[in-house]
Amino acid sequence: MLRQVLRYMRNAMFIQKHIFLLIISLFSILGFILYQSNNPKCESWPVGMSAKSIEESLSKDKLNELKQQWLNELKTSQILSVPDEPPQTDSQVPVSAIQCLINDEKMVQCLKSSKSEIYMPFDFIQNYFDVYGKMKHYDGYDRFEFQQSNAKDVYNPKTPYTYSGVFMTFETSNVEARDRVKCISGITGVPLSTQWHIEGYYYGIQIAQFGMSHYSKHMTQKPPTKQVYENAEESVQPQWAFSNKNCLVEIKKDFERNSQVIKFTTPDSIPLGSGVSLVLGNTMEFILSFDLKMVANGSLSVVLETNDKMKQYTIHYITNSLVIDYDLKSNIYYGIGPSRTWRHMARDLLTDLKKGIGISTTRHAKKVKVVIQKVSRLIVRGRGYIDNVTLSTSEHLTQFFDASQWMYLNQDKETGGWKNYVERKLEGFETIPSGWISAMGQGQGMSVLSRAYHVFHDPKYIVALSRALQPFTKSSEQGGVRATFLKTYTWYEEYPTKPSSFVLNGFMYSLIGLYDFKSLLEHEFGFGSNGEPPKVSLQIDSVNLPATYKLVNQLYHNGMTSLTAMLPLYDGGSHTFYDLRHFMLHTSPNVARWGYHVTHLSQLVLLYSVSREPVLKKFINNWSGYLKGKVAKHN
Amino acid sequence: MLRQVLRYMRNAMFIQKHIFLLIISLFSILGFILYQSNNPKCESWPVGMSAKSIEESLSKDKLNELKQQWLNELKTSQILSVPDEPPQTDSQVPVSAIQCLINDEKMVQCLKSSKSEIYMPFDFIQNYFDVYGKMKHYDGYDRFEFQQSNAKDVYNPKTPYTYSGVFMTFETSNVEARDRVKCISGITGVPLSTQWHIEGYYYGIQIAQFGMSHYSKHMTQKPPTKQVYENAEESVQPQWAFSNKNCLVEIKKDFERNSQVIKFTTPDSIPLGSGVSLVLGNTMEFILSFDLKMVANGSLSVVLETNDKMKQYTIHYITNSLVIDYDLKSNIYYGIGPSRTWRHMARDLLTDLKKGIGISTTRHAKKVKVVIQKVSRLIVRGRGYIDNVTLSTSEHLTQFFDASQWMYLNQDKETGGWKNYVERKLEGFETIPSGWISAMGQGQGMSVLSRAYHVFHDPKYIVALSRALQPFTKSSEQGGVRATFLKTYTWYEEYPTKPSSFVLNGFMYSLIGLYDFKSLLEHEFGFGSNGEPPKVSLQIDSVNLPATYKLVNQLYHNGMTSLTAMLPLYDGGSHTFYDLRHFMLHTSPNVARWGYHVTHLSQLVLLYSVSREPVLKKFINNWSGYLKGKVAKHN
Repeated sequence: MLRQVLRYMRNAMFIQKHIFLLIISLFSILGFILYQSNNPKCESWPVGMSAKSIEESLSKDKLNELKQQWLNELKTSQILSVPDEPPQTDSQVPVSAIQCLINDEKMVQCLKSSKSEIYMPFDFIQNYFDVYGKMKHYDGYDRFEFQQSNAKDVYNPKTPYTYSGVFMTFETSNVEARDRVKCISGITGVPLSTQWHIEGYYYGIQIAQFGMSHYSKHMTQKPPTKQVYENAEESVQPQWAFSNKNCLVEIKKDFERNSQVIKFTTPDSIPLGSGVSLVLGNTMEFILSFDLKMVANGSLSVVLETNDKMKQYTIHYITNSLVIDYDLKSNIYYGIGPSRTWRHMARDLLTDLKKGIGISTTRHAKKVKVVIQKVSRLIVRGRGYIDNVTLSTSEHLTQFFDASQWMYLNQDKETGGWKNYVERKLEGFETIPSGWISAMGQGQGMSVLSRAYHVFHDPKYIVALSRALQPFTKSSEQGGVRATFLKTYTWYEEYPTKPSSFVLNGFMYSLIGLYDFKSLLEHEFGFGSNGEPPKVSLQIDSVNLPATYKLVNQLYHNGMTSLTAMLPLYDGGSHTFYDLRHFMLHTSPNVARWGYHVTHLSQLVLLYSVSREPVLKKFINNWSGYLKGKVAKHN
Repeated sequence: MLRQVLRYMRNAMFIQKHIFLLIISLFSILGFILYQSNNPKCESWPVGMSAKSIEESLSKDKLNELKQQWLNELKTSQILSVPDEPPQTDSQVPVSAIQCLINDEKMVQCLKSSKSEIYMPFDFIQNYFDVYGKMKHYDGYDRFEFQQSNAKDVYNPKTPYTYSGVFMTFETSNVEARDRVKCISGITGVPLSTQWHIEGYYYGIQIAQFGMSHYSKHMTQKPPTKQVYENAEESVQPQWAFSNKNCLVEIKKDFERNSQVIKFTTPDSIPLGSGVSLVLGNTMEFILSFDLKMVANGSLSVVLETNDKMKQYTIHYITNSLVIDYDLKSNIYYGIGPSRTWRHMARDLLTDLKKGIGISTTRHAKKVKVVIQKVSRLIVRGRGYIDNVTLSTSEHLTQFFDASQWMYLNQDKETGGWKNYVERKLEGFETIPSGWISAMGQGQGMSVLSRAYHVFHDPKYIVALSRALQPFTKSSEQGGVRATFLKTYTWYEEYPTKPSSFVLNGFMYSLIGLYDFKSLLEHEFGFGSNGEPPKVSLQIDSVNLPATYKLVNQLYHNGMTSLTAMLPLYDGGSHTFYDLRHFMLHTSPNVARWGYHVTHLSQLVLLYSVSREPVLKKFINNWSGYLKGKVAKHN
């Protein structure tokens, strides 16, 4: 075509004669050429009839030049067409589907790049290797984030561990939120477990962990904000309202408490939720605390406004022994027992609300997503005294006290054990009958009571701590918690199974409990350090402190010797083992899920920080690597 | 532009008057339109100055139509560009590059499909998870094949295991080809190892495995094809040629052998490789065997034609104590010792050639790829007798005999051990000084000698077998192989380390050896079965057979008890452990590579087949799963 045009142009006469047609022709030819040379989207040389005609009409050189230009421009355009990504050199690599045969067993669809690189779908990788991945969205770009484990952070304390401080990472635990917590008892203020029995029972370990999580939160969180609604130090507040003429509220001096208190009286006949009410109207602070002394049956009800479709709920705390109930409408009930003495109560209203709505006939409380918008008012009914009605953002020390008190009161005086009144079935082992003692329970109880003594300085806690050592001196068969690994190493059993099960995390919790009590005796009674004599009386009630110190010291050190020696048996090379049931029962190892693996690590970090035992350090390093896919070497 | 053209066409007078120009114009316009409508490569609407001019000159509808057409054609072209695959529905799914962050540590380029599926590159997966993958090409299509392990087949016998049959999967082993085999000694006919010492030393385990691989091949392979070149039963063959007038070959009656043999005599002065030669010209059978009795120093040389650049090599077997040498040209030397008695020799000429060319100053023989094309001729020099000159495809029983003979001759008479005269260093353990005994060596030796007795019926093998039990009765500290795991379980140590190392595969080889000897006594001497009295004399030389049977039985059963009990300690949940050094030294577990994992499995299959111990069956199932990525469950 070009040649034709040029030939035409050489004919000058034609130009003059047929100027109009010429302009049209030139226009169309020029337009075509310009268009082609600027078109950045053409991938390869056009084929087909029309392409041939173009080839014939354009010079070879020009064609090749154009082709090269288009190819380059196509590449550029494809790089730029990657959506929302930072430009990648590889992003334009065309891929094709390819079948991938997995272990001669099944097919997976993969991709193959033009450089023959194989790409496997993450769906397959995730299931096959049990790993994790998530698309994350950042400002302006997305990123896929792969993780070997779904684990939480390992304990990494800023200050040295002490028996009087934060317990491991428990400041991040929310024991009451666990679905195997039925509710927080209105009578004891501690959780009731449904872990191994639907009815709900007091599980010492859970209660100790509840106590320790609140203690640790108390140590780490900012002080709560508080609103005191009634402390009876002035005249009766105008907020009190009466649903009945026979209701009465008055300020009285209470000699037991040496304080003014509110006396309330309502007729016996008025319904639940009626009586004397105090407007609270608090939209921020949802922990209700008060001092209460009932002199007749009655109740304390709290009206809550929520974001739920039901909108308004009332929680009734009643002087009976009910655990928890819910009328499936707007009323939730908790028994607070028939006590006729003063007591300080703290109720986490959101927890009480959620456990009420989520009430379940299975072992797991239902997950409830409800938010309190306002604590509207409090209503008391019956006859009694109330003081210091307060709403606050937390009341950790009260919750810790309740746990400590439970531990103190529920220790079996004869054995020193916190007995678990629930059958325990572990696969492959004989069923453990109700009433068993757990070394972990003993240890966690000791960690709670060591802190309780540190805070409240009540010698009864030393008595309980001392008693708590007894099960460590008896074998599982004798009702204790002691086991021996192949005639050599002493172990403290989380579960007193037949045969022994050697659960690692329970053992380490028991060592931490022993360490706590040991350090308490060292720091607060002067034992241990350089043979100096103890600073205080060597006898607390029936407790011989030197003998107790000697025993706890020995139990701790024997346990640490076993831990150091046996730790390698829990090392799977890429995971840890939860216990040694594989050795005891000749089964597959019971691999610890990542949550337990992190617990193992946190416990080792703690025990290393107080023992400086180099073997522990080595295993902390190796086992931390497993969280990032760094496995033991093969030969 | 179109409108201009149409307007122009309406003017009929113009058409007649300016026909030439019109044709040119139409041509160029038509060409342009046709080209565009047929161009399948354009991805999106062209941009830039010339595009604008085209937009202005073409109708919007036409433009959109064209654009749509091009986009469709581009898609089609991309689908069709998938190379060599069966068409896949997903193959045209466009992918984009996406960054993938691995364990918060590093970035990997991944792909994201339009359905937001993530694909990870196999390169990464392979390294991260230590797995295997290969592109395989089948008729008409390719497939990617993913494997958890690179393992060989596990022992899976068609007939029950017996002490007189194939040993595990050893019929597939080629011991002499291992790069840590320096060569097959010309003096003993067994391999010299360089595994832990560069000089080369006799390593009992390697020799036993050499013997057992040839025994197992003898049991499973077709009988060899053979060419007998000289058996001296007729007159001297015409093939013998003389390089010197003073050379002599004659047939003699040998009374010791009760057979006619060839007597050869050459002058002492003639060079190596000269003498009396016999043309062989064999292109198929490369195992040379003969009976030889030298009466003065001399040599036997074999000339080989190969595919190597050197083409012709000569291997010289010389009556000295040289191990192996190579002149880096065409001559390889092996000493055959100064023996002056009749002996039967079998030489694998290809092995001798390769070990010669591959001679190395490191622990590893060089890999040599050479093929023998013809065994040209044999030359004897010096004075002596030769008989039964044969080339065959195999001579396994001779090789097995040589190994058995070595085991018999090299057993330490005092301890009953096959002592290893090499220092052994295992990381983390004390160095084991030269002269140590291995339970694996004892076991493998017993497996050889049990078969040797079965085939050759020489009572000396029973004597050696009986002696071989002694080290099992002594601890490693006492120079034996016995260890005890935590005061409880008896173990037989592959390496008598301090502390004990509890290598699993070596232990199981020792159990198989004990089983072999035990079954030999049961099957060939009538012990054990239903208390029946032994069928033969109870005394062989100094051996008290009943006491020996009692001991081997006890050693085997004690070992099996330990194996059953301790097997779980080797279970990593996704791999097995090679030993228990992690427990003994408080280190990371020494994960067994897949080769050893398969050995563990094969040994368990064998021991289960003869013991029917259900625990072994359970572990065979679990551990087989690991080869396919089926790991132990987590809690």
